[in-house]
Amino acid sequence: MESPINNSPEKTIAENQFLVIFGSTGDLTGRKLLPALFRLYINHLLPQHFVILGTGRKDLTNEAYHDHVKEVLNRFIPSMEEKETTLIPGFLDLIYYQHVNNKEQADFEGLKNRIYTLSKEKGISPNIIFYFSIPPFLYETVAANLIAYGLHEEKDGWRRIIVEKPFGYSYETAVELDRKLHAGFEEHQIYRIDHYLGKETVQNIMVTRFANGFFEPIWDRKFIDRIEITAAEKIGVENRGGYYETAGALRDMVQNHLLEVLAVIAMEPPVVFDSQSIRNETVKVLQALRPLSAEEVASNVIRGQYIETAAEGKILKGYREEKDVSPDSKTETFVALKVFIDNWRWSDIPFYIRTGKQLPEQVTEVVIHLKPAPHQLFKELCACQPTNMIILRIQPDAGIAIDFGMKVPGEGYKVQNVNMAFHYADLATKEIPDAYERLLLDCMFGDATLFARDDAVKASWKFVDKILNAWKEDPEIPLYFYECNAWGPVEVRQLFEDPSQDWKPPYINL
Amino acid sequence: MESPINNSPEKTIAENQFLVIFGSTGDLTGRKLLPALFRLYINHLLPQHFVILGTGRKDLTNEAYHDHVKEVLNRFIPSMEEKETTLIPGFLDLIYYQHVNNKEQADFEGLKNRIYTLSKEKGISPNIIFYFSIPPFLYETVAANLIAYGLHEEKDGWRRIIVEKPFGYSYETAVELDRKLHAGFEEHQIYRIDHYLGKETVQNIMVTRFANGFFEPIWDRKFIDRIEITAAEKIGVENRGGYYETAGALRDMVQNHLLEVLAVIAMEPPVVFDSQSIRNETVKVLQALRPLSAEEVASNVIRGQYIETAAEGKILKGYREEKDVSPDSKTETFVALKVFIDNWRWSDIPFYIRTGKQLPEQVTEVVIHLKPAPHQLFKELCACQPTNMIILRIQPDAGIAIDFGMKVPGEGYKVQNVNMAFHYADLATKEIPDAYERLLLDCMFGDATLFARDDAVKASWKFVDKILNAWKEDPEIPLYFYECNAWGPVEVRQLFEDPSQDWKPPYINL
Repeated sequence: MESPINNSPEKTIAENQFLVIFGSTGDLTGRKLLPALFRLYINHLLPQHFVILGTGRKDLTNEAYHDHVKEVLNRFIPSMEEKETTLIPGFLDLIYYQHVNNKEQADFEGLKNRIYTLSKEKGISPNIIFYFSIPPFLYETVAANLIAYGLHEEKDGWRRIIVEKPFGYSYETAVELDRKLHAGFEEHQIYRIDHYLGKETVQNIMVTRFANGFFEPIWDRKFIDRIEITAAEKIGVENRGGYYETAGALRDMVQNHLLEVLAVIAMEPPVVFDSQSIRNETVKVLQALRPLSAEEVASNVIRGQYIETAAEGKILKGYREEKDVSPDSKTETFVALKVFIDNWRWSDIPFYIRTGKQLPEQVTEVVIHLKPAPHQLFKELCACQPTNMIILRIQPDAGIAIDFGMKVPGEGYKVQNVNMAFHYADLATKEIPDAYERLLLDCMFGDATLFARDDAVKASWKFVDKILNAWKEDPEIPLYFYECNAWGPVEVRQLFEDPSQDWKPPYINL
Repeated sequence: MESPINNSPEKTIAENQFLVIFGSTGDLTGRKLLPALFRLYINHLLPQHFVILGTGRKDLTNEAYHDHVKEVLNRFIPSMEEKETTLIPGFLDLIYYQHVNNKEQADFEGLKNRIYTLSKEKGISPNIIFYFSIPPFLYETVAANLIAYGLHEEKDGWRRIIVEKPFGYSYETAVELDRKLHAGFEEHQIYRIDHYLGKETVQNIMVTRFANGFFEPIWDRKFIDRIEITAAEKIGVENRGGYYETAGALRDMVQNHLLEVLAVIAMEPPVVFDSQSIRNETVKVLQALRPLSAEEVASNVIRGQYIETAAEGKILKGYREEKDVSPDSKTETFVALKVFIDNWRWSDIPFYIRTGKQLPEQVTEVVIHLKPAPHQLFKELCACQPTNMIILRIQPDAGIAIDFGMKVPGEGYKVQNVNMAFHYADLATKEIPDAYERLLLDCMFGDATLFARDDAVKASWKFVDKILNAWKEDPEIPLYFYECNAWGPVEVRQLFEDPSQDWKPPYINL
């Protein structure tokens, strides 16, 4: 074991525990959870004694569920090595199945009994993670049913729940969901997954900023001109039109992931490097987001929707032609916004956020544009004042690059932009762990650093609600259309006050 | 023509002129000047009408001198291309020879007449560079002889002299030499070559610092812990023992090259980017060097001499066994020193300078060690607090690298040092010009930025003199011995107050 999990060098393996999965035959469980658990297993990172208890409406035997697990592992772990395949039976030995209809309170008594039986059989204290891998409308029901049988109480072991996004649909519904969960569970028991925070590169932003003497001195309004955060998807909504119609890009990406990334970029240094201190700082950023008035929404937020586009000899569907999408849908598949953080560090420095589907690249990156040198010594020598950027690439090809000016070899002082880069993969002695592996492991250790805290969720909804409400109440605010493979609607340039500014084209290669 | 020479975008070719070389059959002329002139010729960078007039004690015809030129070009331009070879005759057309015994004043009348004859023949105004490619003891004589015939007067054209190092042998002799040159020539006519300043990377230090918003904010005592300057030679004194016995590492490398590099690293931003403003700033650094008392010389300066060493099956000679070297020589072939610059920017920040012969690598680089992050957030998570360094490699493989900490992929927050680099060669569309090409061209344009000014020469001698005097007067100050292929004597570590500090091993590859 190379390194500690939860910041304590002594503890390298989590204590014995249960992981109960609601929705254990669902899509997320198959695509993400089971592969992540299997990788933790083969890397010897799971607790010494550990039980995975799948639940669901289907009446499956352990063996039948094992067959399902085998099938999804083979499907979702591409090019599994022979050596790994031989480890599957050992992994299956950890896995049990229990019939539970989430809406049937009585089924939760059976669940409780099953856990305690296994606890005795295996000699594992009933430390339990309940993973809500289910549609959000069931969160409150399952929580209530767990509470009904006292499964929230931490008498003979700890109890944690992991919930997936979306955490509510608006500020009001988020507050309501929170109230329901808190009817039994305390905040320290609730782990709200934001898989962006599980990404190595996002965590690395904190290390880059706070472990080095190099970056933090220039990390403020005195030296930074503006910051861009781009999360672009090359694909459309595919078969998730039904969900997307109720969400849109703002709820799907900005409210959670991108505002969390912004918080990590903009946060003050924490007092110590623990969950509480870090989240105390990130929430302050979200609380300092300057609220947008209805008029500002029209000027500072640009929404778009992709339309049918001919590309490379085929026709890419428009959003309104997608399955389960209304033919006059006003759902935004692209959103770009300019936001300000009203605090001493960032006052008046614009943060530009954009995200969308059917864009030219699959890329997530942060671009920090530095102010030019205060005295432009070389201006008269050539019209080539360099820009200075720090680029934090989150995916793909995670890494960091610095873009700056150097002298062109030869006579005179001609300056040209060059860049130097570090590729995160160069540091990896083994495969970079998936976000879900990291997050599951953190929860097993009780480390909530990379999970969203209730106050942060509320603060970001508070900001996003203003935009959603303005859109709802003012039909004059346009929804712009854009062709597939464009960087959103052309109107997105309006966000920049200085017409010479524009989004940095994302690097293909750092 | 891609770019201007002397900071003025309009002027791309220097005006018509003469270059008179004293010592035209000597070693420096053959190794450096003629190859540099030839490369300027093939790159169309010489003035439209241009005469190179070689002089010397030998009585040569133009043709005989042409044969000499051809021979040295073939010898000192390795792997000359066929295309280039065909250009040699055209280059020779620019070259004439005049017999001049430097000690015979009357010969300078012949020189003057020859110049004026060529001036009429070629229609070139008598703008003249006199290049002193001769032993330093002749500088005063040649200057006096030029003055005797009015060849310093700028009546019908400008007159410039280029002198090579050493500029004196001590503060006193430097002042005396200066007085002699200034008997006729004004300071603006005197170009003191420091070939280090002609190096692209040294010039690039200014661009890096002053064209970017990125570096200058951390370029001071608040963020920098210490700075190292290393200039290491892998070879011994070879056949230059006679010269070296009168010089030593301190005079040969530190007084001129390395203190100039230090000045460029440490200077304040100039008012504008011209010769006068830049040199006004670099001289201030040299004037701010904290003078060393006799006691401080013993503790802050370590001198060494290489000894006979067996390496790879052969014996490397010790310095005292070299040709023309005294068997009990106390000349230092290695020197390392800790110096301070007493000004607001650098107060109490040590600059470590080391240079020597028979060291393990041929490398010149500057290493800027940043202070650690003020609050060591990750200290308790692992014993791996990163160091932050900016490395400016002057030669070989010129470039810049940044060394900093990133998160090791995986659980926890283990931090590891990584580096990213920019190789200057990546920016070069053509061969990076040699320092002499740049310097000759600058002098042709009358741009003295990269030449040493009298006040700078005096300031650096003033500093170095204290050391030379202490060595002379206190025989107790040890001369340490070191084996060839070591980084000088082991005692060099004594310069660091913090025993955990040491010289950074120079990177072989950035």
